[in-house]
Amino acid sequence: MPKVGVLLAGCGVQDGSEIYESVLTLLALERAGATWLAMAPDVEQAHVVNHYTGEEDRRSTRRALTEAARLVRGKISSIHEISAHDIDALIIPGGYGVAKNLCSFAVDGAEARVNPHAERLIQDLHGLGKPIGAICIAPVLVALALPGKNLQLTVGDDAATSLALTRIGAGHHITTVSEIWVDETNNIVSTPAFMLAHSALEAETGINKLVATVLERIP
Amino acid sequence: MPKVGVLLAGCGVQDGSEIYESVLTLLALERAGATWLAMAPDVEQAHVVNHYTGEEDRRSTRRALTEAARLVRGKISSIHEISAHDIDALIIPGGYGVAKNLCSFAVDGAEARVNPHAERLIQDLHGLGKPIGAICIAPVLVALALPGKNLQLTVGDDAATSLALTRIGAGHHITTVSEIWVDETNNIVSTPAFMLAHSALEAETGINKLVATVLERIP
Repeated sequence: MPKVGVLLAGCGVQDGSEIYESVLTLLALERAGATWLAMAPDVEQAHVVNHYTGEEDRRSTRRALTEAARLVRGKISSIHEISAHDIDALIIPGGYGVAKNLCSFAVDGAEARVNPHAERLIQDLHGLGKPIGAICIAPVLVALALPGKNLQLTVGDDAATSLALTRIGAGHHITTVSEIWVDETNNIVSTPAFMLAHSALEAETGINKLVATVLERIP
Repeated sequence: MPKVGVLLAGCGVQDGSEIYESVLTLLALERAGATWLAMAPDVEQAHVVNHYTGEEDRRSTRRALTEAARLVRGKISSIHEISAHDIDALIIPGGYGVAKNLCSFAVDGAEARVNPHAERLIQDLHGLGKPIGAICIAPVLVALALPGKNLQLTVGDDAATSLALTRIGAGHHITTVSEIWVDETNNIVSTPAFMLAHSALEAETGINKLVATVLERIP
């Protein structure tokens, strides 16, 4: 029974992990008989967004680990406790929190810094040849963590994001919402999900393919 | 194409709506070709629970509508804007927020008060013969909103909750996690979900059956 890490960044598309993508990932893993190990960094979120108004809530602060715990009913570890030897693969759902709390891409673009624990885990998994699945905006995080590896990824068809990806040094490939892109050399699978999807149902096919392919590619 | 209301109470099992149950409900509705209309009351949550530690966070406050908006990417209405004529059916996912923010059951048990907007909507739908689906702990809310109607419901096998349900005046029926209970007379469908489930996958079968049955029972 493979054990798959799921790296979260909070709870909610605007300042954390995208909820539909995260739940679809967990469901697909459970259907496949895999166990999952959710994790998030114990850092202050870049900010808090009121998801009803869409505006930043400047009066409050939240921590990424505490909020990510909501998404998984408290069944979560702080990422610093997890080693690449603990898991057979890693999947990273999207949401702006990936670009705000796991790295500084939302502010710094191609010059973004990566959370050191996330960077270390991604580099160690890559070094061990274990597969990584990156959903929605998460391919940007993987590219930032693995410079000089000529990663081949998809982030949908957003021009600015795909341009930034090429500036980081990765190749970008446009796919439909229900497709995945497989980087055979680096063992990295990506799918656009809510970079293109308009509903959870639309995101489901691509995420199911990504999860199945990640599981198949475990060494 | 039927339009189904989904009544939320926040975002997170301990102080809001249970996330897996809510997402599974939306997915099942989308798969069936139904549209959904999410809603929540614009009230202060009874409290905020840190889902990492499991402890109450007494320093912060959150609003049920604002947090429920996270669960549906901002696509939500305040319940006071919704009439029973706007929707063909209503589904209420579980989570302790149902017993804390939609009614006071968590504190007051069988003597709980119900949020007046939720009470009005449930009573109006019942009066129009439109079906209501209640997941996990949500049957308690429906029973509180419809006194004297001899409702027949399931809330899993928890002794204290089922006893409270009978004190409110409803009949309780134990089912397995993957089953539903249909009250033909009152057009109310219930399923235990996380009153019994240990994973999203375990909750899925019952929720899928509940959604399908609610849609079939639209007049």
